[in-house]
Amino acid sequence: MKEYEIYELLKKYGINTPKYEVFDIDAPLYFDRFPAVLKIASDKVVHKSDVGGVRVGIDSPEELEVARQEVVENLQQRGIFLDINDKFIVEEFVQGEEFYIGGLYDTIFEEILLFGKGGTLIEIEKDVCYIDTQANKEEILRSFKTTKISKMFPTFRGKKYRLEFVVDVVQKFQKLFINENIEQFDVNPLIYTDEGFVAVDARLKPGKKQKRAKRIRSSNIFANQNIAIFGATDKENKVGYALAKNSLSSSANIYFVNPHLDTLFGKKVYKSIDELPPIDTAVIAIPAHLVLELIEELGKRGVKNIIVISAGFKEVGNKEAEEKMASLARKYDLNVIGPNCLGIYNSQKNLNLTFARASILPGNIALISQSGAVLTALIDKAYTHSLGFSHIISLGNMADFDFADAINAMEQEENCIYINIYAEGLQNGKSYLEAIRNTNKPIAIYKAGKTKEAKKAAFSHTGNISGDYDMLIGLSYAAGAIIKEDIDELIFASQFAHFSEVLIITNAGGPGTILTDLVVQHGKKIYRLSKQEIEQLNAILPSTWSHNNPVDIIGDATAQRYQKTLEVLYKPHLLIFVLVTPQFMTEPLPIAKIITKYKNVIPIFFGEESFKEVFNYFQEQKVLYFNDLENVANIL
Amino acid sequence: MKEYEIYELLKKYGINTPKYEVFDIDAPLYFDRFPAVLKIASDKVVHKSDVGGVRVGIDSPEELEVARQEVVENLQQRGIFLDINDKFIVEEFVQGEEFYIGGLYDTIFEEILLFGKGGTLIEIEKDVCYIDTQANKEEILRSFKTTKISKMFPTFRGKKYRLEFVVDVVQKFQKLFINENIEQFDVNPLIYTDEGFVAVDARLKPGKKQKRAKRIRSSNIFANQNIAIFGATDKENKVGYALAKNSLSSSANIYFVNPHLDTLFGKKVYKSIDELPPIDTAVIAIPAHLVLELIEELGKRGVKNIIVISAGFKEVGNKEAEEKMASLARKYDLNVIGPNCLGIYNSQKNLNLTFARASILPGNIALISQSGAVLTALIDKAYTHSLGFSHIISLGNMADFDFADAINAMEQEENCIYINIYAEGLQNGKSYLEAIRNTNKPIAIYKAGKTKEAKKAAFSHTGNISGDYDMLIGLSYAAGAIIKEDIDELIFASQFAHFSEVLIITNAGGPGTILTDLVVQHGKKIYRLSKQEIEQLNAILPSTWSHNNPVDIIGDATAQRYQKTLEVLYKPHLLIFVLVTPQFMTEPLPIAKIITKYKNVIPIFFGEESFKEVFNYFQEQKVLYFNDLENVANIL
Repeated sequence: MKEYEIYELLKKYGINTPKYEVFDIDAPLYFDRFPAVLKIASDKVVHKSDVGGVRVGIDSPEELEVARQEVVENLQQRGIFLDINDKFIVEEFVQGEEFYIGGLYDTIFEEILLFGKGGTLIEIEKDVCYIDTQANKEEILRSFKTTKISKMFPTFRGKKYRLEFVVDVVQKFQKLFINENIEQFDVNPLIYTDEGFVAVDARLKPGKKQKRAKRIRSSNIFANQNIAIFGATDKENKVGYALAKNSLSSSANIYFVNPHLDTLFGKKVYKSIDELPPIDTAVIAIPAHLVLELIEELGKRGVKNIIVISAGFKEVGNKEAEEKMASLARKYDLNVIGPNCLGIYNSQKNLNLTFARASILPGNIALISQSGAVLTALIDKAYTHSLGFSHIISLGNMADFDFADAINAMEQEENCIYINIYAEGLQNGKSYLEAIRNTNKPIAIYKAGKTKEAKKAAFSHTGNISGDYDMLIGLSYAAGAIIKEDIDELIFASQFAHFSEVLIITNAGGPGTILTDLVVQHGKKIYRLSKQEIEQLNAILPSTWSHNNPVDIIGDATAQRYQKTLEVLYKPHLLIFVLVTPQFMTEPLPIAKIITKYKNVIPIFFGEESFKEVFNYFQEQKVLYFNDLENVANIL
Repeated sequence: MKEYEIYELLKKYGINTPKYEVFDIDAPLYFDRFPAVLKIASDKVVHKSDVGGVRVGIDSPEELEVARQEVVENLQQRGIFLDINDKFIVEEFVQGEEFYIGGLYDTIFEEILLFGKGGTLIEIEKDVCYIDTQANKEEILRSFKTTKISKMFPTFRGKKYRLEFVVDVVQKFQKLFINENIEQFDVNPLIYTDEGFVAVDARLKPGKKQKRAKRIRSSNIFANQNIAIFGATDKENKVGYALAKNSLSSSANIYFVNPHLDTLFGKKVYKSIDELPPIDTAVIAIPAHLVLELIEELGKRGVKNIIVISAGFKEVGNKEAEEKMASLARKYDLNVIGPNCLGIYNSQKNLNLTFARASILPGNIALISQSGAVLTALIDKAYTHSLGFSHIISLGNMADFDFADAINAMEQEENCIYINIYAEGLQNGKSYLEAIRNTNKPIAIYKAGKTKEAKKAAFSHTGNISGDYDMLIGLSYAAGAIIKEDIDELIFASQFAHFSEVLIITNAGGPGTILTDLVVQHGKKIYRLSKQEIEQLNAILPSTWSHNNPVDIIGDATAQRYQKTLEVLYKPHLLIFVLVTPQFMTEPLPIAKIITKYKNVIPIFFGEESFKEVFNYFQEQKVLYFNDLENVANIL
């Protein structure tokens, strides 16, 4: 497509272009808006500027004629000879800051826009953000504000820059990109003017884009009253044993199915599906080659929720069986979780349909993970620190049920307050973003695989091609997700998310400073001491105390001094860090015992050899503690 | 200073400027190099462009006259009326990429240059680096390469960009800034052309700059053969007790001094300095008000090394006493460490002159810290993990002996291989950088306090874009230091610094991916498996193993499978991570016991509840282990 044809297309969507005229290659150039720009429009030229195909600063008809000669010569020097198919464009020179907008078709996210700083250094500066074509105004702005160039708004060097223009131009390009058969486009520069953005240089690659069919689900994956476990067994080294054992604590009706067993944990074992009473949920832990047949049978009988624990599908190259599983799910309108997954958990009915080693306590976090191994690790850690979950969903290979389904499922679940996600690679980006956009619950995401080398590793493992990290993270953030940089945050941070102010009590200034950095960097406030509190502390602390938060109670602080300080400052709405370094007068265990008397007081014992007894004590008490500073970020 | 006067000054240092002419405000403008630029030169105008004081794209004498009228009107509209003191500059238009160079006088680092991308968006883009005026070519380039704009070099869009031009122009400005009485300057743009950089727009603030006198030391702080501890005591709650006790293990001669004691730990206690045999080193732990008198006395007797443990100086507002201490150090040519410090340690002679709680093991890291509390914490941690030190220097208030002295002192110490620094604030930046520049040993720095940015007077861009943390870190990195982001790295990372390649063995793909990210981000290579190794592993691993590093030996991996994999892949020159998640078949303790048989195999048991026994085992064995992924970065 030639540039002037693109201009026409842009105008159709209300996008401004410069005033321009198109001329045949040998026609006289009549133009009266100066300064003007002369550009070649030829299929033989991709980057016009790089081959001398653009002349700017043309102030008169005479200069225009000179410019034409220069362009022709520049191109000839590079072996490009113009012919009857080529045209000249003369257009008014548009002055203003240079922006960029582009569109690409991504296999995961489909149509995606890039927007940000334009100009010739765009590849070097990379000051752009990703914007979904479905993004609303709020989302467009949230994304834009991650760029440096956005700092020009609302005023820069005395000139107004209007965010409405950004929203307006992005929305127009969203429409254009969705409606037209365009695979890729590039507008650089997109000039900011007092009347809005003007698209000055545009390139475009036509092409058809595939659309994914939207999967509508009629049943709720967590409507589990009558549950059958296929492959329940008394063999302790089998997954079916752990599943059966973990399921026992539930108040739902659990049925074990195994043709070779009569009873298990004192319960009757059903020989086959035919013997079973009506069920709504099936957990499958039988050999891979028998799974599809069973799903078909369950589908026929109207069982809606199927959790496939069994491995041996995509991850071992058996893609075909997995595609069959997906088509069965569509055929019978099933929720199929897995295959190759750890299972699910719901604190309501205390329903543990996983084969995790550690017990799962009830809580308010829904943990959704693509990796079963990461789930086992986080469940393990959570139990040690008395942290619980409302739901756990192990997505496994995601043949059918995926991130979007899991997020959507949480909407109706009242026991779920926070949604936390561990992701390796997505399949359906648009529905994922829509789910994030639509949920009212705080949603956090950790994405594995940032570097090229890591992507290679992920590929060999899940069978999912992991998407570009920056794009996935940028789009998730814009849609409203909180981005996590440390896996442990997925279980720890939500516990303290509701605290907005932080108090730090310390026996060392430097570590107090570092902790202050972390607190501020994670968007929490440093609580400001009241005059009265300062006076009360003056009465009990040495005169050299910091008179400020962080409250440095000085290196020789005893347990009693910590106690008195806490008595003055403790407030239930504050998140309080008590920082202890192993100084000469420090009494570790007595200080630890004071801390555990209070709620929301987090001990940070920065050291190790002097604190072994303390750490044992905290572990016995199942108290969350830290022995370094940077890890404290995991709960911020 | 007017711009044309600045041009003359720049030329004196060989810095290119455009061809230009200066005209009185009413004189006719004769100029024949077009396109040209017209600029106002007036003390009434600071940012010329912002008030319409610059016209570009002037192609003829007629346009030049028009431009002059426009400038006059623009200024009048803003209430600026030109008079006989003002001039016009007409200069040739220089085309090319816009860079920036500026200079500022910092109270810590003295003259510092900023160099990077120029243009009107400089405050928004902040794509600049800091360069010391003493920086050599290598350092200039190391600093420049931290900018995005440096990626244009050596070629961008078919055009050559020469790094020699960068070095050349920076070196010229270094000379100019050092030699002239300039407090601040700003060149924006500094245009890159095929003939080198051309300074197009320059502003400059004259002013005298203070120079710090260089402190030359004649004695070595670690020449300690005969050491007196003033304030040694039998009172267990006093610092002097811990000092005396820690000193006992040394092979140097230690003398205790205390007027109220006869013996301590079976050794004679001297009543006063007069009784003592000749000493080279004094450790002082007596009340603050007696310290200065003692130092004077020690100075008179030719004692060269003085470590002032005593607190009660600058940190409690007693600045005067501390200044006196500094002047005594100069008067008697002493090394005075402290006051308010933890002391020093040297693995030679097993000399522990600190009052740290935990023992200190010998090793090859010199740990230099401004904070005594951080030192106690790191010493504590190091002991737990059997990590040692060659030297420890607690700098305390740095009345005399500072970072530069500590780094310089390490040059002659053969037992020191790595120099690791914990810094809160510097005093003498130039000598600090010089010390980093001069040392041949790997030197790492952690700086506390990022969000506290020192606000500088906003004379120019320079003032706006400089910040304490960024400047210190930027300059340290350029001078050759490794920047650390986590305190724990100061003890852990050096232990493994000599490994360049990493092997990962894991029972879970996702965590393997995350670890791969960390390894690559920290500049280490992922070891590539040989064909032979892959074949050997094929024979012992399930067919679904990853066939790649990370070596994913699959979730059902037993201890035996870990063992066999290690047998095939173990190599002493590889840093090997063995990653274990608590999966159903996992045998934590047997795996742990296999790992401890090998050197340089680091266990990562990602979980907690299932691994309590394992963690106890590792602690008993004093083995470094991890229970999460992100912390592994501490040793990379």
